[in-house]
Amino acid sequence: MIPHPSPAQFSLRSQWAKDQAISFLMQQAVENRDVLSLAAGLVDEKSLPVFECRTALTSLFHDDSLARQALQYGTTAGADALRVQLRLNLARLEHCSADELNIDQSQMILTTGSQQLLSLVADVLLDPGDICLVAAPTYFVFLGVLSGIGARAIAIETDEHGLNPQALDTALARLDQAGERSRVKLIYVVSDYENPSGVSLATPRRCEIVAIARKWSRPAHPLFVLEDAAYRELRYDGADRPSVWSFDESRETVILAQTFSKSFAPGVRIGMGILPKSLVEPICNLKGNDDFGSANLNQHLLALVMSAGDYEPHVCEVRDSYRRKRDTMLAALDLAFSGFPEVRWLRPEGGLYVWVALPKQIDTGFSGPLFQLATKKHHVMYVPGELCYPSGAGSVPTNQMRLCFGVQDAAGITEGVRRLAAAVIECLLA
Amino acid sequence: MIPHPSPAQFSLRSQWAKDQAISFLMQQAVENRDVLSLAAGLVDEKSLPVFECRTALTSLFHDDSLARQALQYGTTAGADALRVQLRLNLARLEHCSADELNIDQSQMILTTGSQQLLSLVADVLLDPGDICLVAAPTYFVFLGVLSGIGARAIAIETDEHGLNPQALDTALARLDQAGERSRVKLIYVVSDYENPSGVSLATPRRCEIVAIARKWSRPAHPLFVLEDAAYRELRYDGADRPSVWSFDESRETVILAQTFSKSFAPGVRIGMGILPKSLVEPICNLKGNDDFGSANLNQHLLALVMSAGDYEPHVCEVRDSYRRKRDTMLAALDLAFSGFPEVRWLRPEGGLYVWVALPKQIDTGFSGPLFQLATKKHHVMYVPGELCYPSGAGSVPTNQMRLCFGVQDAAGITEGVRRLAAAVIECLLA
Repeated sequence: MIPHPSPAQFSLRSQWAKDQAISFLMQQAVENRDVLSLAAGLVDEKSLPVFECRTALTSLFHDDSLARQALQYGTTAGADALRVQLRLNLARLEHCSADELNIDQSQMILTTGSQQLLSLVADVLLDPGDICLVAAPTYFVFLGVLSGIGARAIAIETDEHGLNPQALDTALARLDQAGERSRVKLIYVVSDYENPSGVSLATPRRCEIVAIARKWSRPAHPLFVLEDAAYRELRYDGADRPSVWSFDESRETVILAQTFSKSFAPGVRIGMGILPKSLVEPICNLKGNDDFGSANLNQHLLALVMSAGDYEPHVCEVRDSYRRKRDTMLAALDLAFSGFPEVRWLRPEGGLYVWVALPKQIDTGFSGPLFQLATKKHHVMYVPGELCYPSGAGSVPTNQMRLCFGVQDAAGITEGVRRLAAAVIECLLA
Repeated sequence: MIPHPSPAQFSLRSQWAKDQAISFLMQQAVENRDVLSLAAGLVDEKSLPVFECRTALTSLFHDDSLARQALQYGTTAGADALRVQLRLNLARLEHCSADELNIDQSQMILTTGSQQLLSLVADVLLDPGDICLVAAPTYFVFLGVLSGIGARAIAIETDEHGLNPQALDTALARLDQAGERSRVKLIYVVSDYENPSGVSLATPRRCEIVAIARKWSRPAHPLFVLEDAAYRELRYDGADRPSVWSFDESRETVILAQTFSKSFAPGVRIGMGILPKSLVEPICNLKGNDDFGSANLNQHLLALVMSAGDYEPHVCEVRDSYRRKRDTMLAALDLAFSGFPEVRWLRPEGGLYVWVALPKQIDTGFSGPLFQLATKKHHVMYVPGELCYPSGAGSVPTNQMRLCFGVQDAAGITEGVRRLAAAVIECLLA
């Protein structure tokens, strides 16, 4: 079950981490610098919080003692000043008081983006050959993390309401029968406006998934849920759903990951995790070895932005800006594919992505004709959908693509979709 | 050879990372908040670059386009703006031109402190059971990294000129005979003013260690040297030595790690590695999974400080401040132990530490009488020397201690040493 790399000079981990889709994608971006990218998951340049950061930094460096504190080492778990603010922010998102969150501050850990938290959680729970259950499609960078530690990702049937709890339960029963229950350590869900599908997990399913995880959990072999709420604050319309984490009244089963790269600024590189108590020490131990703490200065910066009340208004602006961009992309798709009802996409209520399904005969992969045509002739790039499925997942659809409306401005989005449609139609009519 | 943890709920890595000395030490610091700490390896609060950072950040946020660039995602390897400056800084340290460094910019990677680089290098090279050769004593946090991935640290005889090349060669020959040469992946050296011993590796030994590594290296089983130059810029007197890395003309054997936590500010959390070409892709792949890039904002900040010419003068100030503190500690030790010639220490020419050897009968360990007496009665704390030796290293001296003159001011250092001497003398006379 553990991948057997060919003999090589470096560690097994080094070999498992090779040939990630993301590397190839970035390579494509470098080699095709003249393309209009609907692939990159960067954020909107114009809505970055220059004003908010300038204000906070001015105030930070105006206070000599606070500045010295921010420039000194922090702790592995992160600055208390920010943890206090993030707790308030989480309470706001959960529509409850900070006390009602029912967590100790020690259960909150600050990381270098939420990516580091995802990576630490995987590292603490999964040995080579262990299993993480994921939606299909799901966030392909996390699939890279899993394969990078030699773990197995198993795809669970997913529809327009997210990961299917019945299918999850069935998969666990099947794994149990196969004697593999003890290898299943984690269920990974991107609960809101999933990257790449744009789908949100329906509220009843959130509750069911927690119940299923608890049902299959054993004291010696706990089963955790990792909820990646990266896009939670980027809600443009539709329901304001409680987190999966909120349904875990025990606070023992769900790990909640949040990032401030999308809602604030990726360059500040702050992520956060809310951990079950049993995971606090193991995660801090690993982070201690990895870097013994993310940048303290940045944590003080975000704490000041939040305590000044500048964070929430900024998120509102960001949301408005992305909502318009989403609408622009949806309108462009409507226009471009009006004569092609077999090209379909989901209307996301938030996040940064539109997931497009083409007719089955069109292969969107790197080596397929569409990707070549799109990048080389029409100068536009997308993320091939197949990257977002675990490898060896059986029949992976090869006719899907992820489009991001985060980076380009309205004109870029419209033009990008026009170019993409030209490439798709050329393929369709070929 | 691989540690066999008791059955547990989490991954092997999670178990290997448990019970690190640093955790216990930090716990002691928390439990003994009223002690005067000569243990913590933090930096001098007064010499933190508040002015330099304020100036650079003002200029960064004055330029809207640059500010947006700094707040956006960076790359996994780090911001080019800073890599250009660090290359110039390295050339200055090596007394050559940037071209004469004979490296591509792609061989430089920016990390979250140099700790992340040390951790990535260990992860790329060492599988569980693999071997890293280290000086004895050496940096105990790196020993934690090694045990955290299940690797074996083997101590090499070390004297007041650093790691002994003859002993290194003998150890490699012995391992070769035992059929273990292929498990030896790395030699770790803190070349300047080693943490904890204060010892610098003599220049001829630097050259010899590179030659020995190359002699024992095989194409299928390369042997690398990881040079941790954390304290290089904190030179107070004595020789200005070329790096170990500079003797590796092939640029294929030595990995050079540098941190800007000591010379600039830990809260900015920037480290750097110069990698052999063969390691660039593997290290970037792992870092891609871990966090896909350290904080971009911080890299732009340090780049601006450096390009404004504010870095070098700051390092001079820091150096002057620490030189005075070192002298204060040495004078305090002279005074406190004037009647006890059996208490000995090395005079470091740089860095942050003085390494003290007590008479053999005094056990400096956490559970020994001195540590208890020092923390509980005399309210002073040090780092027990035995933490700085690999476990299972055979006869580990238990009568040594590491004192740090980084954090306390002159009065604190003098008082700390006075208290420590009172505790030691109480033990000696008991």
